[in-house]
Amino acid sequence: MTESPGKIVLGPHQYGKAENRVVRIYRDTDRHDIRDLNVSSCLRGAFDPAHTDGDQGAVLPTDTQKQTIYSYAKEHGDGSIEEYGLALARHFVDDVEPVDSARIEIEEYAWQRVPAGGVGHDHSWTRTGPEVRIAAITVSGTGPQRREWVIGGVKDLVILKSTGSEFAGFLTDEYTVLEPAHDRILATSLMVRWRFATAPADWDDAYAGIRAAMIEKFATLHSKALQQTLFEMGVAAVEAFPCLAEIRLSAPNKHHFAYDLDRFGVENNGEVYYAADRPYGLIHASVLREGAPDAGIAWDPYTGAV
Amino acid sequence: MTESPGKIVLGPHQYGKAENRVVRIYRDTDRHDIRDLNVSSCLRGAFDPAHTDGDQGAVLPTDTQKQTIYSYAKEHGDGSIEEYGLALARHFVDDVEPVDSARIEIEEYAWQRVPAGGVGHDHSWTRTGPEVRIAAITVSGTGPQRREWVIGGVKDLVILKSTGSEFAGFLTDEYTVLEPAHDRILATSLMVRWRFATAPADWDDAYAGIRAAMIEKFATLHSKALQQTLFEMGVAAVEAFPCLAEIRLSAPNKHHFAYDLDRFGVENNGEVYYAADRPYGLIHASVLREGAPDAGIAWDPYTGAV
Amino acid sequence: MTESPGKIVLGPHQYGKAENRVVRIYRDTDRHDIRDLNVSSCLRGAFDPAHTDGDQGAVLPTDTQKQTIYSYAKEHGDGSIEEYGLALARHFVDDVEPVDSARIEIEEYAWQRVPAGGVGHDHSWTRTGPEVRIAAITVSGTGPQRREWVIGGVKDLVILKSTGSEFAGFLTDEYTVLEPAHDRILATSLMVRWRFATAPADWDDAYAGIRAAMIEKFATLHSKALQQTLFEMGVAAVEAFPCLAEIRLSAPNKHHFAYDLDRFGVENNGEVYYAADRPYGLIHASVLREGAPDAGIAWDPYTGAV
Amino acid sequence: MTESPGKIVLGPHQYGKAENRVVRIYRDTDRHDIRDLNVSSCLRGAFDPAHTDGDQGAVLPTDTQKQTIYSYAKEHGDGSIEEYGLALARHFVDDVEPVDSARIEIEEYAWQRVPAGGVGHDHSWTRTGPEVRIAAITVSGTGPQRREWVIGGVKDLVILKSTGSEFAGFLTDEYTVLEPAHDRILATSLMVRWRFATAPADWDDAYAGIRAAMIEKFATLHSKALQQTLFEMGVAAVEAFPCLAEIRLSAPNKHHFAYDLDRFGVENNGEVYYAADRPYGLIHASVLREGAPDAGIAWDPYTGAV
Repeated sequence: MTESPGKIVLGPHQYGKAENRVVRIYRDTDRHDIRDLNVSSCLRGAFDPAHTDGDQGAVLPTDTQKQTIYSYAKEHGDGSIEEYGLALARHFVDDVEPVDSARIEIEEYAWQRVPAGGVGHDHSWTRTGPEVRIAAITVSGTGPQRREWVIGGVKDLVILKSTGSEFAGFLTDEYTVLEPAHDRILATSLMVRWRFATAPADWDDAYAGIRAAMIEKFATLHSKALQQTLFEMGVAAVEAFPCLAEIRLSAPNKHHFAYDLDRFGVENNGEVYYAADRPYGLIHASVLREGAPDAGIAWDPYTGAV
Repeated sequence: MTESPGKIVLGPHQYGKAENRVVRIYRDTDRHDIRDLNVSSCLRGAFDPAHTDGDQGAVLPTDTQKQTIYSYAKEHGDGSIEEYGLALARHFVDDVEPVDSARIEIEEYAWQRVPAGGVGHDHSWTRTGPEVRIAAITVSGTGPQRREWVIGGVKDLVILKSTGSEFAGFLTDEYTVLEPAHDRILATSLMVRWRFATAPADWDDAYAGIRAAMIEKFATLHSKALQQTLFEMGVAAVEAFPCLAEIRLSAPNKHHFAYDLDRFGVENNGEVYYAADRPYGLIHASVLREGAPDAGIAWDPYTGAV
Repeated sequence: MTESPGKIVLGPHQYGKAENRVVRIYRDTDRHDIRDLNVSSCLRGAFDPAHTDGDQGAVLPTDTQKQTIYSYAKEHGDGSIEEYGLALARHFVDDVEPVDSARIEIEEYAWQRVPAGGVGHDHSWTRTGPEVRIAAITVSGTGPQRREWVIGGVKDLVILKSTGSEFAGFLTDEYTVLEPAHDRILATSLMVRWRFATAPADWDDAYAGIRAAMIEKFATLHSKALQQTLFEMGVAAVEAFPCLAEIRLSAPNKHHFAYDLDRFGVENNGEVYYAADRPYGLIHASVLREGAPDAGIAWDPYTGAV
Repeated sequence: MTESPGKIVLGPHQYGKAENRVVRIYRDTDRHDIRDLNVSSCLRGAFDPAHTDGDQGAVLPTDTQKQTIYSYAKEHGDGSIEEYGLALARHFVDDVEPVDSARIEIEEYAWQRVPAGGVGHDHSWTRTGPEVRIAAITVSGTGPQRREWVIGGVKDLVILKSTGSEFAGFLTDEYTVLEPAHDRILATSLMVRWRFATAPADWDDAYAGIRAAMIEKFATLHSKALQQTLFEMGVAAVEAFPCLAEIRLSAPNKHHFAYDLDRFGVENNGEVYYAADRPYGLIHASVLREGAPDAGIAWDPYTGAV
């Protein structure tokens, strides 16, 4: 590293309104529907004077972005979060002159109808989770320069298998004390994000199908390591959905340690575990489709939550 | 208030091991089952010298309580959390001489089988929630003085109705600016705890049935206020389950404010809401069965999580 | 436990507005001051019809309570949180007819002036913590029946000593595997609440003095167990402040385990520790002054945060 | 977006052990010192077979990484977090054959000595915060290809000014309802990260100095917008520390809304505010020194916490 007394200049910047909690009720008939969202908007563009001179002339207030998010929930909020995000991102790029690109990040919380009299109630729900559907939509440029990227995903998808998982044959060094495991619990809390190469026929169906393909693979694959499990889950999704360009998986290895009960004369055949909090293994894996459209700025982050 | 230079003495005290994360796998056949628990133990008794003299002679270490919790997950952990908690509490009172009473608090996290090939997988699950089943078991005394109290419950049960709720006709004063509402969203995140008068035929069935009775009432009752909704939910549960002595409900009123879109020429007929975080109304309600056994020390808290 | 098919009736209830985030700036001169508060109000009284009939005629809306909290931050918010809470509680009991008693719970977040040019800046601060000052004020009845209780306290006060702590000579049973420790880290995150017998000369000074007396005792006392440390901390505070009637301490034993480095030929003389999350010991202790005014309903909880 | 049925391949991947809670006590004399850390390690390299074939032959277990982190806390943990992180990262790259690059992320929690008898106690401390010192060290390659990047920083630095802040002259569109503000509270919770061009004389002094330069600028600069404030804070730090190559600031605009008390006949001259949770403005700014060494993979994230 060498010291460099160069000129000090403004670097990359972006801004927006984060975590607008939008609840959209569809009540055209007595049987209501609900979409429960957390929406963040991010604008990039010709905002240098706001930084260097305090000149806000090109800055659309974050309050205005909030108003737009709520108004678009009615004006353009009748579909999936991917479509709603596209409408918002296109608006900011097309209608707000200083904006070069916009990123919309959305979390969607799931609800299920309350059972009442044997059927799902018309206008009452309980929250389900912990998993959360996510999307990040980026739109850039106008005219021939227009590019659009859509990322869908899920986070806080907690999944566990009580057998069919091992970890052995690993590299060792002078700090290695771990014993190989041939039958262990494998558990993780997934964040998975997939980038679309093309728009699917139905965004909601794509979400459900990608999720289903991944968790079925998790269940049925004999795991030699979390890395392998993640890779195969990604392959399963990309194979099943030709509309996908790539998929990224982030997975904490939520360690479950078999508890030593021998000391008390009690046999523990993989039945009683201590579920540890920290530390945890943390694995990042990804699967790409060769020849898919490039990622461009699709992965450039904003809030860090998507 | 008047000053009092009286003698300074030891007051009430209790101690234990909190938040033991126990995962119990049942693998007697290839079709496994799982119970995922957070268990806390609390002992009360003749521990004064530990406070006043630092003498630990009567203090069973919290580490020992932890070992017991894990070992009992195998030795006595084959039923509901209420039964497992009873076994633990009875052990501490019966087998540890200085203990006068013991309280066991348990959270249980729910899992559902991963769909694979059209059926639920044998040994893979995803977490469901956010709601968490809870229990608090208190055992006190021995011989003729023996008392036992069992509290079951649920927390983080998030429930919402998009119509069928109003709030009007309320008391006003000089700080009142709220307008009456005749059609609003009603949403809350419930913590409900019920105290058993007698053991039900099946603890797991009782949990499912009480929960179902309450949420169906939430859905079908036209609400004039959250207070009324809570009371009727409690009544529904106590009526349906004669084994219950009382029920306590704690409910934040999760405010959803209709967003003003008129400013943008957009009509909002109860379709777009801002879901606020803080502040929130917070309502506590309870329902009692007259003549039921007294609560004794059943509600004396330990971790505050149950 | 015996089943009892008695009449089903309304039990105890209370309600209010929780977590009103109030920031109060004092700007009478160019040197500003700040109080940063989280205020919750709770009313108890003649609200049965709201539960049983949905009749809100006696219910002062939680929104009105919020307005009052903010207005009183100007009208009566020029002192300590204890005085501000008293003003609010007295108002609700005296001025709102159906109210029998009111409880005000307050958290206060601390700020320190930004150093600028060698001195604390006039109107800029950074947050300090993690500890939070708390208070819970309860006012009940009118005329001769009037009672007032003030609880002050601190929570999230994280404190650690790297030596001068042991744990030995404890009770053992068949589940005991713990070895005695003669030199260990002692660490906890304290919640301490003290009930005043009389008003101190200055509430802010009392807070600072009680806190200082406790943490100095923690530092200087050789600890034979966390129980003894807590008791002596409480005694130190009650002795130093005759205005106190009692003090309650809740303390998770944040375990720090010496890490086994022998395996790597590295000596660990109490130098490297693993700081565990869960489980943790949880100790509740209390100190009373004999002859002090009774606690009445001073400790009846509302939000659970104070 | 166009569909592409290309070959499915493994993409980028990395793995490690996250959130190892290390507490290091220095007890060479009776006056102890403490460093309280959260350490995460991340390895990148020739781990493809672990993903594609489940072959762990090149995978150093995350458990081994944990052991190394704790052992290095004694072997190489006698300095700043930047130096400790460098030692760890160099070890993994130099001594573990399949590793191409390693990233070490560290959080450091601050403690201050308990005042006892008028001086700071030898071995007792209370935690301070909420701010947390952070570092991310990346080492890549061996021999002539060796590159090293050190990022230092701070997060959860909550700062507020009660005057000297405005926001006006901004761009408007049909969704703009915000009024210009000429005297408002400006508050944020900063995450700031700076990349070193060269090693400073003392890493701890550099941390303190950079932090001090930034917060003094926040206090003394009349703010026309949060963007301008962030830029000037960054410039102040980079100017004062020639060892810095760049600085990145992430700042939620924690909105404080003046409360409308006119309705109650109470005057509010910027004295009573509602501190909102969500949504919040979120501003990212950065300052670069021209000619400084390139960032390479310095900013490639791992846990997202640093």
